[in-house]
Amino acid sequence: MKLKPLEDRVVVKAVAPMEKTKGGIYLPDTAKEKPQEGEIIAVGPGKHSSTGDIIKPAVKKGDRVIYGKYSGTEISVEGEEYMIMRESDLYAIVGK
Amino acid sequence: MKLKPLEDRVVVKAVAPMEKTKGGIYLPDTAKEKPQEGEIIAVGPGKHSSTGDIIKPAVKKGDRVIYGKYSGTEISVEGEEYMIMRESDLYAIVGK
Amino acid sequence: MKLKPLEDRVVVKAVAPMEKTKGGIYLPDTAKEKPQEGEIIAVGPGKHSSTGDIIKPAVKKGDRVIYGKYSGTEISVEGEEYMIMRESDLYAIVGK
Amino acid sequence: MKLKPLEDRVVVKAVAPMEKTKGGIYLPDTAKEKPQEGEIIAVGPGKHSSTGDIIKPAVKKGDRVIYGKYSGTEISVEGEEYMIMRESDLYAIVGK
Amino acid sequence: MKLKPLEDRVVVKAVAPMEKTKGGIYLPDTAKEKPQEGEIIAVGPGKHSSTGDIIKPAVKKGDRVIYGKYSGTEISVEGEEYMIMRESDLYAIVGK
Amino acid sequence: MKLKPLEDRVVVKAVAPMEKTKGGIYLPDTAKEKPQEGEIIAVGPGKHSSTGDIIKPAVKKGDRVIYGKYSGTEISVEGEEYMIMRESDLYAIVGK
Amino acid sequence: MKLKPLEDRVVVKAVAPMEKTKGGIYLPDTAKEKPQEGEIIAVGPGKHSSTGDIIKPAVKKGDRVIYGKYSGTEISVEGEEYMIMRESDLYAIVGK
Repeated sequence: MKLKPLEDRVVVKAVAPMEKTKGGIYLPDTAKEKPQEGEIIAVGPGKHSSTGDIIKPAVKKGDRVIYGKYSGTEISVEGEEYMIMRESDLYAIVGK
Repeated sequence: MKLKPLEDRVVVKAVAPMEKTKGGIYLPDTAKEKPQEGEIIAVGPGKHSSTGDIIKPAVKKGDRVIYGKYSGTEISVEGEEYMIMRESDLYAIVGK
Repeated sequence: MKLKPLEDRVVVKAVAPMEKTKGGIYLPDTAKEKPQEGEIIAVGPGKHSSTGDIIKPAVKKGDRVIYGKYSGTEISVEGEEYMIMRESDLYAIVGK
Repeated sequence: MKLKPLEDRVVVKAVAPMEKTKGGIYLPDTAKEKPQEGEIIAVGPGKHSSTGDIIKPAVKKGDRVIYGKYSGTEISVEGEEYMIMRESDLYAIVGK
Repeated sequence: MKLKPLEDRVVVKAVAPMEKTKGGIYLPDTAKEKPQEGEIIAVGPGKHSSTGDIIKPAVKKGDRVIYGKYSGTEISVEGEEYMIMRESDLYAIVGK
Repeated sequence: MKLKPLEDRVVVKAVAPMEKTKGGIYLPDTAKEKPQEGEIIAVGPGKHSSTGDIIKPAVKKGDRVIYGKYSGTEISVEGEEYMIMRESDLYAIVGK
Repeated sequence: MKLKPLEDRVVVKAVAPMEKTKGGIYLPDTAKEKPQEGEIIAVGPGKHSSTGDIIKPAVKKGDRVIYGKYSGTEISVEGEEYMIMRESDLYAIVGK
């Protein structure tokens, strides 16, 4: 990734998760207004606290994350679509 | 729970409480616009104060909590529905 | 009370005050858009200052308080109706 | 006054000032949209600064004050009407 | 002036400035939506910084000042009209 | 200039810049919604940080500056028109 | 560049990037509502933290940056069009 996000911004590549139902059958997640899953591609240095110190991001490159469907801004880099958003727009890291 | 909430976010599993009337009969809580009861499934590390320190969450995994009916965002993990919200959206812990 | 409020929240039980007129006759307070009187049932640990310290609440369990008629959220616990609100929604303590 | 205001709130009893014209004749202040004059009946302990310290109120019981006509909330205590408002809603103290 | 302004408020007496044109003829300033000129009659002790310290006002009694035409609140004291406003509503001091 | 701006305000005299086109011909800037160029006539002492310290202005008397066309307030001093605005309304200093 | 931006402002020269599709064909970016690419022409000294310290900008002259299409203000200097905006309007630096 040739983009270096500024402040507490992150570049995310959306992924289409397969959901597993209770009965064990995988169903694609179609028309639901659910949060989006993605992979962190690049992370900024962090934002400044009100006293001017850097607050380091809690996510790192390669993390799987959940974020609001309408968060951030679309950006295309070398023909690929990404989202760039503030770290505070990320809800959670998806553990392995 | 494979979700690790970020900042002061919590993952909550809604529960359908049975209310006990004064006379001792249990009634399901139907059409009321009341706060929702749930169980804390996962807790983030806490948010940053304006000076950059972490403020530790006051709730922990397994706590029964009360939160606003319209707080947070729905999220589905492995076929189960959860809510993810800020700790400040939680009103109270339900003691045992 | 099995509810433990979070942050600077308080649980209040509304009471119907009897007002005494100048001439000494008691009249129920009927249609007036006046603040509400209640009793503090439970108090949270307090909110955080911007530097992360806890600011202790100034009210305690058993205090009679005055609060805005439209403050807070209704909540029912074991068949009883309560209000849960921020301490800053309370106007005053009613002395004895 | 049995009310103990919380934070930086004050209880004020409105007074109807008689205005003296330049020519020396007293006229009641009738239809004007002017600030209101009142007497401080009770004062809260003060509000918290962003670092959590108490900022002491600058007014005290018995002070004559000027405040915005639409500031605060009406409250009746033992048949008497008062206003409860934040100290920041007070414009000035009326000196003797 | 019997009014003692609170916080960073000032009492101002509006004055009707005579403007001097480039050619040297005085013209009254009539229908223009320009800032207003006035004289400081009384000054409050100053406002609190976010850490609770007093920030002393930069103006003093007797200063000629310029302020927004729609700033502050009209107030009448002993038959005279004044304006009461925050010091931050003042644009500049008019030097002699 | 007899005006002494308060806080971080500056008095600016608008100037009508002549723009040089790429081909070297000067054209007056007519109907464009572009920022305005002006000269700093007077500078206030600076604004207070949230902790109460003065933040010194970065501009000084005589600086050529660029500012938003709709920033600040018109003011006339001895028949001359000026603008008074906050230093934060200035975009840039024009170097020589 | 004869403009010296104030605070955390930057002067940016928009560039029209050629996008490379997955198949390797270059296509001009036409009707898309995507962020804009530009080059940093000048950088201000940085903004003040709430305690009055300068927060140094993270970008420098010559950096390629991505910013919101509707961020900042157009400005023309010697017949050339530029954008002036806050550093926080920049999303990312484009690495080489």
